[in-house]
Amino acid sequence: MGASDRIARLAERLREAGLTGAVIRSSANIYYFTGYRGSGILLIPLDGLPALYVSPLYYELAEESAHQDVQVIRLEAGTRIENLLDGLPDSIKARLGYDSLSAEEYLRISEKLGRTMTSISDSIWRLRMVKEEPELERIKRACEISSKCMELASEIISAGVAEAEVKAEILKEMITLGGEKPAFDVIVASGPNSSKPHGSPRNRIIEPGDVVVVDLGAVYEGYCSDITRTFYVGSEPEGEVARVYEAVENAKREAESAIKIGVKASDLYQKAYEALSSAGYGEYFLHGLGHGLGIEIHEPPSLKPDSGDVLSEGIVITIEPGVYLPKRFGVRIEDSLLVTRDGVERLTTAPYTLELP
Amino acid sequence: MGASDRIARLAERLREAGLTGAVIRSSANIYYFTGYRGSGILLIPLDGLPALYVSPLYYELAEESAHQDVQVIRLEAGTRIENLLDGLPDSIKARLGYDSLSAEEYLRISEKLGRTMTSISDSIWRLRMVKEEPELERIKRACEISSKCMELASEIISAGVAEAEVKAEILKEMITLGGEKPAFDVIVASGPNSSKPHGSPRNRIIEPGDVVVVDLGAVYEGYCSDITRTFYVGSEPEGEVARVYEAVENAKREAESAIKIGVKASDLYQKAYEALSSAGYGEYFLHGLGHGLGIEIHEPPSLKPDSGDVLSEGIVITIEPGVYLPKRFGVRIEDSLLVTRDGVERLTTAPYTLELP
Repeated sequence: MGASDRIARLAERLREAGLTGAVIRSSANIYYFTGYRGSGILLIPLDGLPALYVSPLYYELAEESAHQDVQVIRLEAGTRIENLLDGLPDSIKARLGYDSLSAEEYLRISEKLGRTMTSISDSIWRLRMVKEEPELERIKRACEISSKCMELASEIISAGVAEAEVKAEILKEMITLGGEKPAFDVIVASGPNSSKPHGSPRNRIIEPGDVVVVDLGAVYEGYCSDITRTFYVGSEPEGEVARVYEAVENAKREAESAIKIGVKASDLYQKAYEALSSAGYGEYFLHGLGHGLGIEIHEPPSLKPDSGDVLSEGIVITIEPGVYLPKRFGVRIEDSLLVTRDGVERLTTAPYTLELP
Repeated sequence: MGASDRIARLAERLREAGLTGAVIRSSANIYYFTGYRGSGILLIPLDGLPALYVSPLYYELAEESAHQDVQVIRLEAGTRIENLLDGLPDSIKARLGYDSLSAEEYLRISEKLGRTMTSISDSIWRLRMVKEEPELERIKRACEISSKCMELASEIISAGVAEAEVKAEILKEMITLGGEKPAFDVIVASGPNSSKPHGSPRNRIIEPGDVVVVDLGAVYEGYCSDITRTFYVGSEPEGEVARVYEAVENAKREAESAIKIGVKASDLYQKAYEALSSAGYGEYFLHGLGHGLGIEIHEPPSLKPDSGDVLSEGIVITIEPGVYLPKRFGVRIEDSLLVTRDGVERLTTAPYTLELP
C-alpha cells in the first residue's frame, strides 16, 4: 500500500464523518500521506487531487519526493494558512477536518472561514498505528542500528569515562551505520542521574559502582527505534541494584508475555505495575509502560493505566518498565516490539547485561 | 536578571493586558521562566506564587533545577490540563493568557472554563528576544563549539567521503566539545543535494567538483548556535560557482553592514535581496535572510520581507543569504551575530574558505 492508497483510505473516513476535506499540517502526517519529508500544508479534498503547498525552500525536495498523485504547489513567501484555505471552493471548505494546528492558527482560520473545524487526528492515528510492510522494514533497520549502538555503549562504559563521551560515540556510530539522526536526545544517565528517567543535562564522569541507564533510538528513512539498557559498573552490584534490576526484568517479561492481538494496552501496564508492586517498587514506577512508534518516537497506542487503546497486528510498541529510587539510582529496560498474528517479535536485540566487565 | 525577575516582568505585562494569570506550556518558555528543562505546565498567577506542574517522570529534575520561587507540584498520571485549570480560584482563571497550546487543548480548556483565553506569545517573545548576559554566555559557547565543528568538517570533506561520514564526525566533535546535542539535524549537502536548502535525506558520496553546504548548530546549556559554510571540492571552481559564492558573500556583507539598533529586519532582507538581484540571482534566494536564536533555533525576529520586527541591543540573529540553482548547486553562508550598542559582534568564527585543499 502506497501513499495514494493511504489518502484514499483517509478520504473514506472523511466521507463517513461527513467532512468535505482535510487540512494536514503535521510533517509526520505529510510524510505518511505523500512521501515528502519537510514542512508544508497538505490539502485533501474529498474528491479531487490532493495539493501539497510548500515554501520555495522545500519546493525542489517536494517535487522530487512527493507521490505522483499529489500536486506540489509553491507557496509565495508570507502566505498565511487562513488565506490559503479561505480561497478554496465551497465544496471543499464547507466542512474541513484538521490534524494538528496551534490554537492561534485554528482561531484565525475558523474566524476567516466563519466555521469551526473538526479534529481528525484519531482517524489518522488509526491508519498510522498499523504499520505496513515497507514501514516495518524501516523500523526494523532503525532497531538494528540502535541495537548496535547499544552494544557499543556497553563496550565503552567504564569508570572514568564521561557520560558525554559515551553519547559522542553512540551518535557517531548511529550515523556511520546509516541512521539519519537520533530519534530523540540520547540519554546516558549515570549514578544518581539515573534516578531521573530522562537523565540530567549536566555531564558526569562515570564512577565505579554506578548504575548507568542508556536510552537511544535511531531514525532510518524517517522511521524510529527505541531501546534502553541498564548497566552496572563493576561486578557484584550491591543488593538493591540487583533486586531492582530483577524486578524490572520480571515486570518486562510479565507484560511481554501478555502481548497479543486484542489485549488492552492498559492491561499490559497493569501486569507490569503489579509485578513491580509485588516486589515493593510499584510507587517508583514513574511513567507509562511504553508507547507506539513509527514516523514519530511517541505515537499511539499509549501503554498507560488510562489508555483506551487495544493491540492489533502490525502495531509497533515499546515495553519499558523502570524503577527510580530518588537520588540513588534508576533501572529501565526497554525494547521495541512488533505485535504479530501469533504474539510478538522483538525488534531491538542488544543483550541484557547488567554487569559490565 | 534571574528567572524570578523574568516572571515579575511577565506579570507586569499581564497586568497591563488586563489578565489575571497565564498558562505556560512551551518547554522553552518554562526553561526561560523557571530554569527547569523538561515538559510541564507553568501557571503564573498575577499575584501569588508561580506553580510548575510536572509528571512524576520529571519531578526530581524539576525539584533540583527550578528556581526557588517556583512551587513544583507533582501531577498525577492522566491529569488533563483543562481539569487542572478548572480547579483554580476564580481570581486566577477569570482572564487567562496562554503561550502555546494545540487547537484541541485550547478548545477543551475554553469549553471547560466557559471562557476564551488570550495569546501572550508576543509579550513573552518581547522578553526573550533581548538576551541577558548569562544567556549570551551560553550562546557564545554554543557558537564556539559549532565553529570548531565547522572547521573539522572543512578538514574532512573531500572526494570519496560520504555526507554521512562528515555528519558523524561533526556530531561526535560537538558532544566531545561540551555541546549537549545538535540544535537541529546537521545538514551536509553535496553536489545537486546542495541546491535544496535543507539537503536531501539520501546519503551521497562527495565527488570532485562538488559544492558542499554544511549547516550546523550546537546546544549548550539549553541555548543554540547556527552556522553555515559552503565548500568547493577541488581548486578553481567553475565560473558560476565562484560567481554565486561572491554574490552571496557580497549580499551577506551588505546586510551585515546595515545592522544597527533601530533598523527594520525587513530592511536587512531587502539589502541582501537587492545585492543578489543585481548579481542576477534574486529569484534563487529561496528563504528569509535569517532569524533570531536563543533557547530555540528559530525565534523572533524574523528577517523576512514581511517582518515587522526592529533590531535592538542584545538580540542574536543569523544572517544567511543563499542562492540555489535547481538540480545544480547551492551556496549559503551564515553566521550568528549579536546586535550590540555600536553595531554587531560576530559569534561564529569559522573561516570562509570556498576552496578546500
